Amino acid sequence: MPELRRDLVRDSWVLIATDTALKPRDFPINKNGIEVNSNGALCPFCEGNESHTTAELASLRKDNSLPDTPGWLIRTVTNKYSGFKLEGELKLSETGIYQSCNGLGQHEVIIETPEHNVEFHHFSVEKIKEVYEMLKARYNLLADDERIKYIQIYKNRGLFAGASLEHSHSQILALPLVPKNRPGIEAYCKKEGRCLICDILNEERKSGKRVVIENRDFIVVCPYASRFPYEAWIIPTRHAEHFGEISDEELMSLSEITANFLQEMVRCLNDPSYNIIINSAPINCAYNAGYHWYIEIIPRLIINSGVEITTGIYMNPVAPEIAAAMFRENMAE
Amino acid sequence: MPELRRDLVRDSWVLIATDTALKPRDFPINKNGIEVNSNGALCPFCEGNESHTTAELASLRKDNSLPDTPGWLIRTVTNKYSGFKLEGELKLSETGIYQSCNGLGQHEVIIETPEHNVEFHHFSVEKIKEVYEMLKARYNLLADDERIKYIQIYKNRGLFAGASLEHSHSQILALPLVPKNRPGIEAYCKKEGRCLICDILNEERKSGKRVVIENRDFIVVCPYASRFPYEAWIIPTRHAEHFGEISDEELMSLSEITANFLQEMVRCLNDPSYNIIINSAPINCAYNAGYHWYIEIIPRLIINSGVEITTGIYMNPVAPEIAAAMFRENMAE
Repeated sequence: MPELRRDLVRDSWVLIATDTALKPRDFPINKNGIEVNSNGALCPFCEGNESHTTAELASLRKDNSLPDTPGWLIRTVTNKYSGFKLEGELKLSETGIYQSCNGLGQHEVIIETPEHNVEFHHFSVEKIKEVYEMLKARYNLLADDERIKYIQIYKNRGLFAGASLEHSHSQILALPLVPKNRPGIEAYCKKEGRCLICDILNEERKSGKRVVIENRDFIVVCPYASRFPYEAWIIPTRHAEHFGEISDEELMSLSEITANFLQEMVRCLNDPSYNIIINSAPINCAYNAGYHWYIEIIPRLIINSGVEITTGIYMNPVAPEIAAAMFRENMAE
Repeated sequence: MPELRRDLVRDSWVLIATDTALKPRDFPINKNGIEVNSNGALCPFCEGNESHTTAELASLRKDNSLPDTPGWLIRTVTNKYSGFKLEGELKLSETGIYQSCNGLGQHEVIIETPEHNVEFHHFSVEKIKEVYEMLKARYNLLADDERIKYIQIYKNRGLFAGASLEHSHSQILALPLVPKNRPGIEAYCKKEGRCLICDILNEERKSGKRVVIENRDFIVVCPYASRFPYEAWIIPTRHAEHFGEISDEELMSLSEITANFLQEMVRCLNDPSYNIIINSAPINCAYNAGYHWYIEIIPRLIINSGVEITTGIYMNPVAPEIAAAMFRENMAE
């Protein structure tokens, strides 16, 4: 089992693999480029290769086929590399000044399609809705486990977004602790008595400068303090803490706006690597009010340098007003 | 002038370029790889191309040659892309719920050598010492300006470390505010009454598991909660807050241990991209005790995925005990 170790300097946590270790030769990149995995290698996410993943936790099948056999449309398995296990209780250990806890949690992979060369941004609205439905079902199931305190849904597409496999997939990481990554959410609500994300939504509608598109239930904006060039957020206009609370109607309009924006983003930015990240409130623990779920869509056009990885202060060469205007113009055509 | 915008969600700052904006085609990477700049392009950091940089702020010249002409060994100029300017005062502006301040500060590039194909890890101990001396002189000069609150020294080597130019260089970013990236430093000292880095040093010496090498004034360890595989820190054994306080004797032993470790690291990890980062205390403002300067050496073998960029929880597939043992064994040979 891996360990979650406390980073005393940054007051954060790091997941450290302790059972296995990658050797230097296991990393595909060097200073000049990437040795892309040969296309001949077997893809564990392709239909017919079900035995190369862990056992199926859930799937969407319309043909009554059996688990771990072909016939699926979406398939959820555990991520076999991270080593999180949802067994036993959280145990904090101390060694001298250091603290760690066991890798209690669950790390799931949602294989979004049996087809190797069809990507998320190629999907129809109906297909995107089926993926979101699977994510919602897994989110709510994991949230029922009292030991889980936070659930991060994310997608890595392309090498520069940290993907190790090409085949289209998303991931769900259910953690036994709450990351301290968004302290401003609770602080703002405590100070102002209002939800920060609702206030951002109002502010953006008022100025219009950073709004890309809006539909019945969602708005797409390039955030005021975008960390990444051409970053965009999809914000639900109804205040709700958890992605798992999304209604069926909202799922449909989320799927529409996702398909619409993502196709254009991939076209405008010349087929970039990208992350899609769903942020929700903590669960099964005490926390202050102010959370409002939202989605970050992050094209990975530049690689974080020493200054970003140490200070956390990002340098963004594209103002979000310019990014939003470009997306707006292209989507209006 | 660029803007520093407050990220209300993360309680951090982002530097946003507002005068110019990169277009999608200006980014060299797409999902599959990198279009490396053609080698035929003129390198602004090569000897003879001095007119392609901003005016020289400082240089090491042994031949009495004039500024901005050939004959230099090390040359410091401003980074012309970030747009920081050390002029006027810090002005905080508010627009609705948002806050920003002007890009008051200085961003310097230290061109470490006139030769294009000689890299930092190829340098002799004497040459490394000359680079560190330049960094020390610039650090102390910038620290004399009351408007500067924090100085980050860093080096990006290779595409995966965020370098945009191949020619060997370091950077100094002098900021008008203190990043909140290391809250554990002050908190630990407040709680325990001791310096965290001194305690880490003692703990590591006691266990020995994560120690790589030690010399008269410095120790190299792979930190307990390493965020990156094969990450290492060079820690001065004498407690001092600022890199600028380093003595001439210590500069010599730092140069020795840097050359020694870095050559081995680059060899063991098959010529990786890497960052070298020098962390010091804040300056010209009130802060709590506990800072102790140290250097992070970070090979960039993997690209941060969606989970790292959003939660700040890193997944490291190589335990630091294993990394340290590998470096130790190779260095003993």
